[in-house]
Amino acid sequence: MKPLTEILQMIGRAVDSLDLERSPRELYAPIEYTLALGGKRIRPALSLMAADMFDADLQTVMPAALALEVFHNFTLLHDDVMDKAPLRRGRATVHEKWNENTAILSGDVMSIEAYRLLAMVPERHLKSVLDVFTKMAIEICEGQQMDMNFEQQTMVTKDEYIEMIRLKTAVLLASSLKIGALIGGASLENTDLLYDFGINLGLAFQLQDDYLDVYGNEQTFGKAIGGDILCNKKTYMMISALEAAKGDDAELLDKWLASVPSAEKVAAVTALYTKLHIDEVCRERIDFYHRKALACLDKLTVNKDRLETLKHLTAKLMTREE
Amino acid sequence: MKPLTEILQMIGRAVDSLDLERSPRELYAPIEYTLALGGKRIRPALSLMAADMFDADLQTVMPAALALEVFHNFTLLHDDVMDKAPLRRGRATVHEKWNENTAILSGDVMSIEAYRLLAMVPERHLKSVLDVFTKMAIEICEGQQMDMNFEQQTMVTKDEYIEMIRLKTAVLLASSLKIGALIGGASLENTDLLYDFGINLGLAFQLQDDYLDVYGNEQTFGKAIGGDILCNKKTYMMISALEAAKGDDAELLDKWLASVPSAEKVAAVTALYTKLHIDEVCRERIDFYHRKALACLDKLTVNKDRLETLKHLTAKLMTREE
Repeated sequence: MKPLTEILQMIGRAVDSLDLERSPRELYAPIEYTLALGGKRIRPALSLMAADMFDADLQTVMPAALALEVFHNFTLLHDDVMDKAPLRRGRATVHEKWNENTAILSGDVMSIEAYRLLAMVPERHLKSVLDVFTKMAIEICEGQQMDMNFEQQTMVTKDEYIEMIRLKTAVLLASSLKIGALIGGASLENTDLLYDFGINLGLAFQLQDDYLDVYGNEQTFGKAIGGDILCNKKTYMMISALEAAKGDDAELLDKWLASVPSAEKVAAVTALYTKLHIDEVCRERIDFYHRKALACLDKLTVNKDRLETLKHLTAKLMTREE
Repeated sequence: MKPLTEILQMIGRAVDSLDLERSPRELYAPIEYTLALGGKRIRPALSLMAADMFDADLQTVMPAALALEVFHNFTLLHDDVMDKAPLRRGRATVHEKWNENTAILSGDVMSIEAYRLLAMVPERHLKSVLDVFTKMAIEICEGQQMDMNFEQQTMVTKDEYIEMIRLKTAVLLASSLKIGALIGGASLENTDLLYDFGINLGLAFQLQDDYLDVYGNEQTFGKAIGGDILCNKKTYMMISALEAAKGDDAELLDKWLASVPSAEKVAAVTALYTKLHIDEVCRERIDFYHRKALACLDKLTVNKDRLETLKHLTAKLMTREE
């Protein structure tokens, strides 16, 4: 089993070796810029780990792993345009640094570049990997559309929210594992278990992100606390609070939802969450999906020592404060 | 050989049978709307004709043919966003009818949908078809970027312009033919000849489009005449005029290029084109590529009667006034 550091080094080298010094520069410079911003490279790491579990030659998995990383960065690029976000990973977004048209067109090339890399998958796995990838890619767009729809909806249920983050976040982690497993030659059962592990890990991960947006430590979380509260985002916590609040609490929550963004609003809504035990509700839900994820790993028919790296990454992701 | 009308009917039925009644509706309704606007369906028709030439079962080619049509419409959708175009085929563009975010995200799904259809290509041809398609898709984006760059450049050469329209327009026609030929089981030589035919047809087609934008009949051309002159577009005709104009003519052209859009501007620049014989220069270039295209067809090692439908479409495209 290759340790996480070695896997991340392999990915770093592979990303650096992508030939993006092509012209026209206006098209490719934003792609280089985006990929150089880094990020945790979780998705390609999951692909390589899944394949490594079945003793595969990791170089045969690398093109697909890169395709997943490039596609992920493409979705961030276009999401930032749609959200008019000024910053990504602490740096100016592409549409801010260049302009909106550049961000649209460079993003388009990135999504095609992902498929260019995918076409390098060993031919006996090409059709099945393509099918998994394309289903995932369509689902991510559906999740993004649901997320945008929620901004206009007055009511969103917990189930709807979970379905949205399943599509927008979890299927990419799950598909990264599944694609690695497929190319690694895993059995159908193991492949499906890794997919389910990824879905549950993704849900736990996103809920934790929502939790840290309220209860995180600004220094270690790496972004301002309370962003979701400021823009009235209908997260799992907000939906839970709207369901739980009665009488005066409900009135108070409605009042703050109708108010403009302010530090006072963040403090007041956070206090209300705590009073209503929404922090516990959310942590329980995170634990629920985390446990479900680990249960999938336990069912895998591989030697337990082959799971070490993946369990190490999972532990790291689920105890992060950033 | 299937006649063009039969091929177009097959494509119409296949487009109608695409399952786009999916949710979220905000994502899929714009795709249905875009595909229902119609268009000439030239690209899927070229794929089917190329395959039909080699006696292929056209249903095995249909998914790839649809992928080409869906991808073409995706590029139009995103180009319209970037150009802020209000109309497409006489109807409101997606970003006008819905909004820009919807146009970006629906476009993204369309490009993925194209790959979903491509994955249905018979497995023995999948890798080679993917490679041709992806190369083409990247080149179209490069052509679009060059086109946007030209707006900012003071000088564009004829060669640069031809390279831009090769990428933006011709490679899609060429790749449609090549993909049809590949799936149809054509030899490497015939496949390459059909690709070269498509490149030359595409160049002739686009130059004719530029010509008709100046000298076309408003009634039959289907859009206002002089649009390129109004916005100072550096077409083959404008580049030729800038090269040919000397003394007073050069001064006059510069004056009109510096003036705001007006009917007078269109009339004056058109008169200058005619005086400088730019109409003849352009028509000669169209004929040059048209003849080169037909020469490729003559070299194909197939019975001449198998070329009838393709020659019929070519003649139709090259004598169009719309």
